[in-house]
This record gives sequence, C-alpha cells and structure tokens, in this order.
Amino acid sequence: MTEDTARHREKMAKRKAVQDAEVAAKTIEKGLLMVHTGAGKGKSTAAFGLALRMLGRGRGVGVVQFIKGAWSTGERPVLEALPKLEWHSMGEGFTWETQDRERDIAACRRAWEKALELMQRPGLGLLVLDELCIALRYGYLPVEEVLAGLAGRPPMLHVVVTGRNAPPALLEAADLVTEMTPVKHHFAAGVKAQEGIEF
Amino acid sequence: MTEDTARHREKMAKRKAVQDAEVAAKTIEKGLLMVHTGAGKGKSTAAFGLALRMLGRGRGVGVVQFIKGAWSTGERPVLEALPKLEWHSMGEGFTWETQDRERDIAACRRAWEKALELMQRPGLGLLVLDELCIALRYGYLPVEEVLAGLAGRPPMLHVVVTGRNAPPALLEAADLVTEMTPVKHHFAAGVKAQEGIEF
Repeated sequence: MTEDTARHREKMAKRKAVQDAEVAAKTIEKGLLMVHTGAGKGKSTAAFGLALRMLGRGRGVGVVQFIKGAWSTGERPVLEALPKLEWHSMGEGFTWETQDRERDIAACRRAWEKALELMQRPGLGLLVLDELCIALRYGYLPVEEVLAGLAGRPPMLHVVVTGRNAPPALLEAADLVTEMTPVKHHFAAGVKAQEGIEF
Repeated sequence: MTEDTARHREKMAKRKAVQDAEVAAKTIEKGLLMVHTGAGKGKSTAAFGLALRMLGRGRGVGVVQFIKGAWSTGERPVLEALPKLEWHSMGEGFTWETQDRERDIAACRRAWEKALELMQRPGLGLLVLDELCIALRYGYLPVEEVLAGLAGRPPMLHVVVTGRNAPPALLEAADLVTEMTPVKHHFAAGVKAQEGIEF
C-alpha cells in the first residue's frame, strides 16, 4: 500500500466514523412536508423522481397538478401506466394562457379538493402537489386553508409541493425546502424548448 | 365581467404576448449538457424525472451511476423495468465507505467507459451520468478527458451530470446549470433517512 493510499484510507475511515455517528443521532420518523421552489429547472422533475423512489418501495403515489394539465408532458403517460400511481391534472395552463381569473380559481379549488381526497387513500406514501405554489402566489387558494389541510394529513404521509415563489408561511411549515437556482440557462443562448427536456 | 377580472385579463394578455415573443426568438435545437449540482436534495431525482420525460417521448435513456450502486435505491427497479431504459450502476459506494482510492478510481474508469459506449447507442435521447461530479472532484477521472468525451457525443444527445461540487470547467462547458440549494433540511431537526424519500 502506498503512503497516499494509506493516508486516503485513514482520512476516509475518519469521515465514515463521523458519518455513522450523524446517522445514528437521527431517530425521528415522520411524513415530511417538502417544498421545491426557485426559478431553476428540476422542481417538478425531482418530485417525479421521488415518486419513482416511493413506488419502488411498494407504496402508492398521488399526483395533483394545479396549473399544468392543458398541455402534454412526456412523464405523464409513463407514470400513469405504473401501478399504484394516481394522476390528476386539474389545471388548465398557466394563468397568462387562460386569461380568466375565475376559471383559474375554480380549477385550483377542484385540485385542492382532489388533494384532500388523496390524503385519505390507504397505502399512499407520497402526494405530489405540482405547482401548488403558483396557486398560492396568485391568491387562487388561501395559504392558511392549505396549511391546515396539510397539517391534518395522516402523520406518515410525505408531501412534496412544487412551484416558484413558495409563500413564507409554507416555508415555515415545511420540513425540507430546496431552492432550484438557475446558474446558467440555455434559453438565454437562444436554445428552444425541446421535447423530452422541457416537456 | 368585473373590473378586477378585466384588469387580470388585460395583464395576462400582455404577459402572454411577451411569452410568445420570447418563445419565437429561440430557434436553436441541440443536445444539451446539463449539470445538477449544489448541496441540496433533488440532483439525481430531477435527472430521473427527466429520464421519465424522455422515455415518454419514445426515446431511449441510459443511466450510469459513478458512485452509488453498492446500496439499493427505490427508483432503480422501477426504471429498470421500463422499456428503452438501460441502467448501469458501476460505483461501489461513497469513497468513505470503500476507503480504497485505487478501487474507486478503477470503478469510475469502468463507469466512464460504459458512458462512452452508451453515447453511441442508436435511439438514445438522454444519458444520465449520476454522481460524475464526485468522481471529478476526487480526481478519479481527469476533467479534460471527460469534457473531450462529452464534446464528441452525437450532437442531439442530451446529457445530465449530477453531483455536488461540479468543477468550473464542467460548468463552463454546460448549457444548463442548476444548483440545488438546501434552504431547510429535516436532518437538522433529527429526522432520519426514510425509505422512499432518501433511498
């Protein structure tokens, strides 16, 4: 064994000890309220990746889309074909597409009712509330009502809420908040939205 | 129509015009080099969400895991069961687990050879190089060699590279860089890693 290898091994053995101690110190199990926000890409795709992970553990996943739904995305047919996944696209597009505030509010209200219903599904491990932050941001749903509904869910149910501009009260209530930050974006270089990537 | 509704409609009509003009200005189509980095959650899960999107468009996806592989993750069996997805876990765990630098280097080298092979697969739309940033960061693979290999891929092939601490040269070469930033994390509140969420 070279000196380099020995040093590496010693350093990594120490790191492993620290890692193991950290893992052992964490004992709480609970259904997490997770928020994916920020202006970067990956908020919804990470939620769908999490859906795959939960399905792989044999538990059910519910998806409610609050805004999207009027147009097709590549992941939808693949996820919908999986057993134990229940998908509801309740939105009618971004608000600048519908141009009708009352219609948007009604669509978000129906989506929220569906979310409350899914929370009670037996065997559900994860509920994805896609673009709910947009609905809250535009005032289509009162944040207090949504937080009360989330607080009343079964204690082991994980929920992930996606969308830009998550309201402060939601961040406060969340167990995990990840901000997807755009460091560099190909749209700025004139690259168009491409199939399989943006939709 | 109330005054509020009319104002909303006008505002949203303007926004749609801006949006449409922006979309029209983007004309380039190309295989993107995408990087998901940062200390937050969602780097790999967003890559797998993107894999679903590409599969839903009927094109193939390749996954090479450079570090993970020694332990099981929920998404792997679900993705592996999908047609047109080819999965290769070439890693043997985080470097503090193997504690053997030579072994880690050999595993990363095999993973990179597999990545080069997958780049030539007909019908492949997306290649996920999971945790490649870790391999670069520890110097297990030379960044110049990896960038040259990526530059030589078919021009329409999209690639997503994940992992903390993406090296500057990779960020420079990338079309899209998203940083997953941890704003709040449940581990800090003593919550343990849970099945279906962390693994």
